[in-house]
Amino acid sequence: MPGIASRIRGFTCERELARILWREGFAVIRAPASGSRARRIFYPDIVAVKNKRILVFEVKLLKKYRPVCVESYKINRLVEFARRACGEAYVAVKIIREARWFFIPVEILKVTEKGFYCATREQLSRALGLEELLKTPISELLSK
Amino acid sequence: MPGIASRIRGFTCERELARILWREGFAVIRAPASGSRARRIFYPDIVAVKNKRILVFEVKLLKKYRPVCVESYKINRLVEFARRACGEAYVAVKIIREARWFFIPVEILKVTEKGFYCATREQLSRALGLEELLKTPISELLSK
Repeated sequence: MPGIASRIRGFTCERELARILWREGFAVIRAPASGSRARRIFYPDIVAVKNKRILVFEVKLLKKYRPVCVESYKINRLVEFARRACGEAYVAVKIIREARWFFIPVEILKVTEKGFYCATREQLSRALGLEELLKTPISELLSK
Repeated sequence: MPGIASRIRGFTCERELARILWREGFAVIRAPASGSRARRIFYPDIVAVKNKRILVFEVKLLKKYRPVCVESYKINRLVEFARRACGEAYVAVKIIREARWFFIPVEILKVTEKGFYCATREQLSRALGLEELLKTPISELLSK
């Protein structure tokens, strides 16, 4: 379990992304705090919708570039939510030292033996920035 | 401000609707608890998405049929969220004695002098049931 300080940083970070997307004209909703039982089963961290384009995110805060790994239950709930909504599923990574956001489509994650879904450091550094995310539908990204 | 007991009933009621919609194949997200500052500004109680159909709800619990009134700031955030998402906005009313849900499209609410958005007792009793909501796109409802 992460400590209190890192959970507060995590929430601040989710709120930052929610505000950015709201300013870009999205309808945005954040999941209930992780104390809520319901949340653990069903909800991604953030859902954003604009003109029927639906984006769902698990949010991850890193100090610097490094491989990103996410627990499988979080990716499973993200993918299931996106499937039901016909949405696009991303791991949204804020890198503190770069003060930038990167968006990794779940489709490129690789599952490890221990059941984590991971992207390499290189995949992270080549992931979508915010502007690209806002401009590019997922179908185009995956066909690259 | 409502008391603790009525807030707990309110949450239970939101969770019930969330679970119903989840079982119907929707991706469903509930807003953070009302302690959260962010929520008060932006979020409806529940957002549900299925195949790009987006439903947003303010949830209201009543003991029996009576006129329904909702504070204007709640309707404003509901309408703004639905506008951004291209979704349909409803006041979802659970009537305890009937053990039934009714869904009032915000478009039929009338604003009062004190700034509440209200539906009459009769409008409530003629509002959509759950099955109708799930079957009927809003455009058809409003053209009736």
